[in-house]
Amino acid sequence: MPFVLTILGSSSAAPTSERNPSAQVLNTGKHLFLLDCAEGTQMQLRKMRLKMSSIERVFITHLHGDHFFGLIGLMTTWHLLGRKDVLHIYSVPELKEALDVMMKVSRTTLNYQVEYHFIEPELHSLIFEDKFIEVYTLPLNHRMPTCGYLFKEKPKSLNLNKSAILKLALPYPLLQDLKNGKDITLPDGKIISNTSLTLPPSKQLSYAYCTDTSYFEPLVKYITGIDVLFHEATFMESEVKLAAEKLHSTASEAAQIAKLAGVKQLIIGHFSSRYKELDPLLLEATEVFSNTVLAKDGFVFKF
Amino acid sequence: MPFVLTILGSSSAAPTSERNPSAQVLNTGKHLFLLDCAEGTQMQLRKMRLKMSSIERVFITHLHGDHFFGLIGLMTTWHLLGRKDVLHIYSVPELKEALDVMMKVSRTTLNYQVEYHFIEPELHSLIFEDKFIEVYTLPLNHRMPTCGYLFKEKPKSLNLNKSAILKLALPYPLLQDLKNGKDITLPDGKIISNTSLTLPPSKQLSYAYCTDTSYFEPLVKYITGIDVLFHEATFMESEVKLAAEKLHSTASEAAQIAKLAGVKQLIIGHFSSRYKELDPLLLEATEVFSNTVLAKDGFVFKF
Repeated sequence: MPFVLTILGSSSAAPTSERNPSAQVLNTGKHLFLLDCAEGTQMQLRKMRLKMSSIERVFITHLHGDHFFGLIGLMTTWHLLGRKDVLHIYSVPELKEALDVMMKVSRTTLNYQVEYHFIEPELHSLIFEDKFIEVYTLPLNHRMPTCGYLFKEKPKSLNLNKSAILKLALPYPLLQDLKNGKDITLPDGKIISNTSLTLPPSKQLSYAYCTDTSYFEPLVKYITGIDVLFHEATFMESEVKLAAEKLHSTASEAAQIAKLAGVKQLIIGHFSSRYKELDPLLLEATEVFSNTVLAKDGFVFKF
Repeated sequence: MPFVLTILGSSSAAPTSERNPSAQVLNTGKHLFLLDCAEGTQMQLRKMRLKMSSIERVFITHLHGDHFFGLIGLMTTWHLLGRKDVLHIYSVPELKEALDVMMKVSRTTLNYQVEYHFIEPELHSLIFEDKFIEVYTLPLNHRMPTCGYLFKEKPKSLNLNKSAILKLALPYPLLQDLKNGKDITLPDGKIISNTSLTLPPSKQLSYAYCTDTSYFEPLVKYITGIDVLFHEATFMESEVKLAAEKLHSTASEAAQIAKLAGVKQLIIGHFSSRYKELDPLLLEATEVFSNTVLAKDGFVFKF
């Protein structure tokens, strides 16, 4: 299964008529994750026909409003739509404080459970894992505690060589043994080697979501060789001083990080509302790192 | 100057892909008022090309999320865009508590002043007036303290009879005297009666914004004879029991209030997301009160 990434918002702080603020959905095939949840996220989820109720975990990078002001509305709508599944939220603790007060004044008592996982954004830590995936925080450098998130598939089991196993009527437990690398013994005592019936496992996919941050080289070591990096590119290089002052990155700086980390593809986003046309940002980035694409609201990336 | 009402959101609690939750802009010619501010309001203001920075007063009916979750984002954007004008907010005090916490966790210190006007939703009170307009609260009946708002122009000065005054070269102060109903004395001592130089004043316009509420007849006496009534119509009559239980109204009930109050026009809105097509709601309302129209996102009403 590929990863499917849907961009719900590609704007920085102030939305434009074309661009909503930050939110993305990552479908790993096994999980539907929401990355940031700016105002308007629930409307974008509807427009993109994503199955809102299947989102199990929300990862918030930091508490500037353009990364979480939509969460209270989405949580309320889940309640209204009868959600029963536990919602897991990854964030610094202050988010809970804000959501609790918003729930209180709007007299909302959710009919589902919320489990908060308080993160330490300054650390590179494993914050979630199951048999399919690991999620790590990625320390970033911004005006408040901020982290990115790295989603990394675990080693996968071997694939079955369908044409080879078709000749044998193998029961399910033996197929599992094959996937796990074991040789199998047939009822007549004959042993068949694993390699003759299996193919190498599928590739382990990886995605890093890095926003908001200044140009920050310490990030590189955590994302080296990953498949896709989303890196904020709020400004163009002509605004490099402003970018440094606000602890944001330019398109060229985002590309430099991608280059140093040797990632396969770079997606840039979190664009300042001053840019009506985004091609100049793309051009600037591709001069440093050629396999760069623009995040635009509604874009879907499969990798 | 007519009143110009722009519907930014016509949905009830859960937005649909077509309908945003509650927000309207009333342009009285002298003021730009924002009525409720659900999630997505700032995006809708941009899409409708309304001059965001000219909004001076925000009137919040109640603290269900679909009426105020967009305020924090709009306030933050005003800050980012350099707003300097005082922002006036009319609401129950709990709104300030929620906004203060959201500002704190998002580390936002606004560069403009916010003046809160705490209202008592159970009373019919004058909460704002200047020489052009009066704004009153309208007690409603909902699951939490809720009020509507009545916007009522003050008596206007007389209009000048342009063809009559063209023959006389009157200085500005005398024109003001005429508008205020005074006779004037020409330099030669001749007195000219006011009535020969003036026309009756323009009509005083009035608009009431009533959401959310059950069918609530005590409202009628406060809105009798007004020009335009917006009344919520969350459900159709087939859901009258659910409407009563949730303290919402049906389209037919909204029309009944309009009929009893003898208003000139009724706008219905705040529709449940269960209704894909709205014409049946309109039909139901017009059977009781013929001059009814539907609120839809982006609709502009001049009256």
